[in-house]
Amino acid sequence: MSEDNLPLKKSVLNLSPAVHGGLVRKNAQKHGIGESEILDFSASLNPLGTPFEYCGNEFNMDEMLKQALEKIHHYPDNRYLEFRKAASRFLIESDTTYENIVPGNGSSEIIRLVAESVLYHGDRVIIPEPTFSEYEIQCRIFGAEIINTHQDDIFSISDEILEDARIIFVCNPNNPTGKLISRNKLEKLAERCEQKKTLLFIDEAFSELSDPRQSMVNVAIENDYVFVLRSLTKSFAIPGIRMGFGVATQRMAEGLNNSRLSWNLGSVPDTVATELLNMDSGYNNSYFIRSRQLIEEERNYLIERLSNVRGFKPLDSSVNYILVDIEDFLMDSSELSRRLASRGILIRDCSSFRELGNSYIRIAVRPREENEKLIQAIGDVLTGWGREQAREELKHTIETIAEGGSLGRTTCEYYPCHFEDQDCIFCFCPFYPCEDERTGGKMVDRSSGGKIWSCQDCHIIHDKEVAQKILDIFMNEGDNEENLRSAWRRVMEPLL
Amino acid sequence: MSEDNLPLKKSVLNLSPAVHGGLVRKNAQKHGIGESEILDFSASLNPLGTPFEYCGNEFNMDEMLKQALEKIHHYPDNRYLEFRKAASRFLIESDTTYENIVPGNGSSEIIRLVAESVLYHGDRVIIPEPTFSEYEIQCRIFGAEIINTHQDDIFSISDEILEDARIIFVCNPNNPTGKLISRNKLEKLAERCEQKKTLLFIDEAFSELSDPRQSMVNVAIENDYVFVLRSLTKSFAIPGIRMGFGVATQRMAEGLNNSRLSWNLGSVPDTVATELLNMDSGYNNSYFIRSRQLIEEERNYLIERLSNVRGFKPLDSSVNYILVDIEDFLMDSSELSRRLASRGILIRDCSSFRELGNSYIRIAVRPREENEKLIQAIGDVLTGWGREQAREELKHTIETIAEGGSLGRTTCEYYPCHFEDQDCIFCFCPFYPCEDERTGGKMVDRSSGGKIWSCQDCHIIHDKEVAQKILDIFMNEGDNEENLRSAWRRVMEPLL
Repeated sequence: MSEDNLPLKKSVLNLSPAVHGGLVRKNAQKHGIGESEILDFSASLNPLGTPFEYCGNEFNMDEMLKQALEKIHHYPDNRYLEFRKAASRFLIESDTTYENIVPGNGSSEIIRLVAESVLYHGDRVIIPEPTFSEYEIQCRIFGAEIINTHQDDIFSISDEILEDARIIFVCNPNNPTGKLISRNKLEKLAERCEQKKTLLFIDEAFSELSDPRQSMVNVAIENDYVFVLRSLTKSFAIPGIRMGFGVATQRMAEGLNNSRLSWNLGSVPDTVATELLNMDSGYNNSYFIRSRQLIEEERNYLIERLSNVRGFKPLDSSVNYILVDIEDFLMDSSELSRRLASRGILIRDCSSFRELGNSYIRIAVRPREENEKLIQAIGDVLTGWGREQAREELKHTIETIAEGGSLGRTTCEYYPCHFEDQDCIFCFCPFYPCEDERTGGKMVDRSSGGKIWSCQDCHIIHDKEVAQKILDIFMNEGDNEENLRSAWRRVMEPLL
Repeated sequence: MSEDNLPLKKSVLNLSPAVHGGLVRKNAQKHGIGESEILDFSASLNPLGTPFEYCGNEFNMDEMLKQALEKIHHYPDNRYLEFRKAASRFLIESDTTYENIVPGNGSSEIIRLVAESVLYHGDRVIIPEPTFSEYEIQCRIFGAEIINTHQDDIFSISDEILEDARIIFVCNPNNPTGKLISRNKLEKLAERCEQKKTLLFIDEAFSELSDPRQSMVNVAIENDYVFVLRSLTKSFAIPGIRMGFGVATQRMAEGLNNSRLSWNLGSVPDTVATELLNMDSGYNNSYFIRSRQLIEEERNYLIERLSNVRGFKPLDSSVNYILVDIEDFLMDSSELSRRLASRGILIRDCSSFRELGNSYIRIAVRPREENEKLIQAIGDVLTGWGREQAREELKHTIETIAEGGSLGRTTCEYYPCHFEDQDCIFCFCPFYPCEDERTGGKMVDRSSGGKIWSCQDCHIIHDKEVAQKILDIFMNEGDNEENLRSAWRRVMEPLL
């Protein structure tokens, strides 16, 4: 955007909107697929589903909504006392009270609230990358200078750099890497931050789905320089109802509660979140114990299956998503994401994360049935890609020969891949995958599971005469689906 | 709050939370009254009720919520295209498109969004008082210097002051005064603002309930220096679902949409607001036409009734609330509000508005039945106040005489109010209101409507012997309810 003549701050004019996963409606519209048919591995929601689905007796969504509806005729009580009490109860192993809680319209509102309540224009903030992009965006709006370090360097930041900064953001477990830092380590960082008067902002949005014992809430309620963010969106798998909260010392919470919007939660999120947060045993409720078990089982399963895809290197994770290094894969992260999306499967292309380039995807851990569909879809994308490559190659072959050029295949590093003196006009078979066993080809097991068509024992297309006949058809009659079928019928069939 | 050692900006540490009406739950708890029994004249909601109540066939809340519920398992589509299209359609007589619309989680989020996207620390903003307090609070958070002018001086602000400011806030119709500025006048101010590069922020939160033809949306979509805020909270009488939006030029709206939170509306407000905003003929739907008629009728009725309360001066209004000057009333705005609240009736004590001191209340225009209950309750408060004054006076009398003092009533400017040589020990009768017609007292019509007990024709308490006997009882046996009844039985009854 150009800034001429608009009454907006430069930091806002220079802003690009945040990139997030979970774009179900957008992709459904784009690819003409029903929203309910989309499988979403791009937003990392609890794979167990909502508490309404898991513990139907204890939580009844209709009942909650009825309660919420009775309240919509009044402004919400903007002290949100019941929500705050429930939130402090939910943090079952801590000493928090409602006076430590700051309610938020989703966790991103809390990130913004802290940024706008703490930062003066030009202040520095430390953001170890790659991580959740909202920290940088929210801080940029308020004119902060971003000091990007690496996730691995969080504990080796110098005193000078730490002291110079107003906030350091730590996402734990980190999004998108899935790595969890132990509380011991963070406690030491918290002490340094207090000394250096730098706010340690710890985003525990995925805590309940990872290892809640590593939470820093008990430090946050004692140390003015530690702030913990919690989110209900992912843990309860209800992203449509925006709910989150911050945990801080009473003095910090009071300041932030004064600074937040008067009615940042409507009656529906207020009521629903209060009910859910009041669940017995908080994040140690059987719903969460089962969630963590399921995530571990399915994460192990997915990592094993993904490891078998050539070029996929899934990284270790402590939570319900897996970062996958696909640098050695056939296509980059954007292309793979796009191809899967067209099949109704959303994964998170990580190219919008700093430091990850086009070489990473993030995949949510979902129930087994969905995970299997994902693996199947990756296989289908590979098959589709092979078919396209064959078409491209054919086009190239025809163009080269039409222009009187030579394909010079004998200089190929794989020559001869089938037999000495083979014809290489069709390096990729234009009929792939013909799925006709009379050719000698056959279905084989794929290393990542499922089946794939193998041409290893079919040499027909590399026969000089055959290749020339087929090429003649395409050159004279055109390169299209109909002539492809015609070539098969006229040239291939008689040989089978 | 003290600022020592807290990592918050000074402007946040110095912040007092905003004061608003509509504190139904808080007052219900405080006074032990059921929430549903409270009559709320402090939040100015459409007295016709929600569209669900008025046009039941067209809008079905249950149906809408069912739709919204189907969406809570996904993140909302953060472009909010359907909401924005519906909002532009709602502005029926304008040329807005969805590209002019910025969705908000209630109107206060939009005020904050503009403040944080426009203001640098130390920038000046002009706020003509008295007006909605959120402008000042939101701007203070971002370190703005507030230039307070008076509502009557909006059009005489000098070029220098206008040029020096980054934003000028105009609430139209104004809250709490109810005055509406014509579009003609605002258009001239808009031209000046564009020349001086000062953003003219026009809050039209009550436009649909006043005169929507005065709206400035058609200017806002053409002039980068005009921004219009609209709210659905009041017009649709659904404050529990936070919904509002801003209208600006496409370039401004694009910048602000980049700057707003990614998912500021949850699925429920997104769905409900979209449905409601899509209503036929927008703000000229029969629901709004009937709303404006009802408001005018009931406003006229209330102004007439309130004028009859001694010391009440209701001001002219163009909208669904009335500012009442009560400087000459028996009690100040805080005391009156407190006394009405204890009877389950909330009015807006305007002492938190700048320039209004303790001399103003704001009263929402409600349906006839509720308006009558308000008038009745004001009468009851007056009666209760009279009774308390009598008790206070009695206590004072007893104390003065016990200390050997003289009441010196003959120096009273009203002496003799009943007859020459009357006894004035009980200037206020301790039995008021006895409601016993044998005394000569009787129920009379009150000027503001309703009945009140009049002692004009009862002189008993001013008889020397009677006054002395009653005083003796209180002095010897104590000043309490039981002895009050005993004194009536022993001294008064024999005389009737």
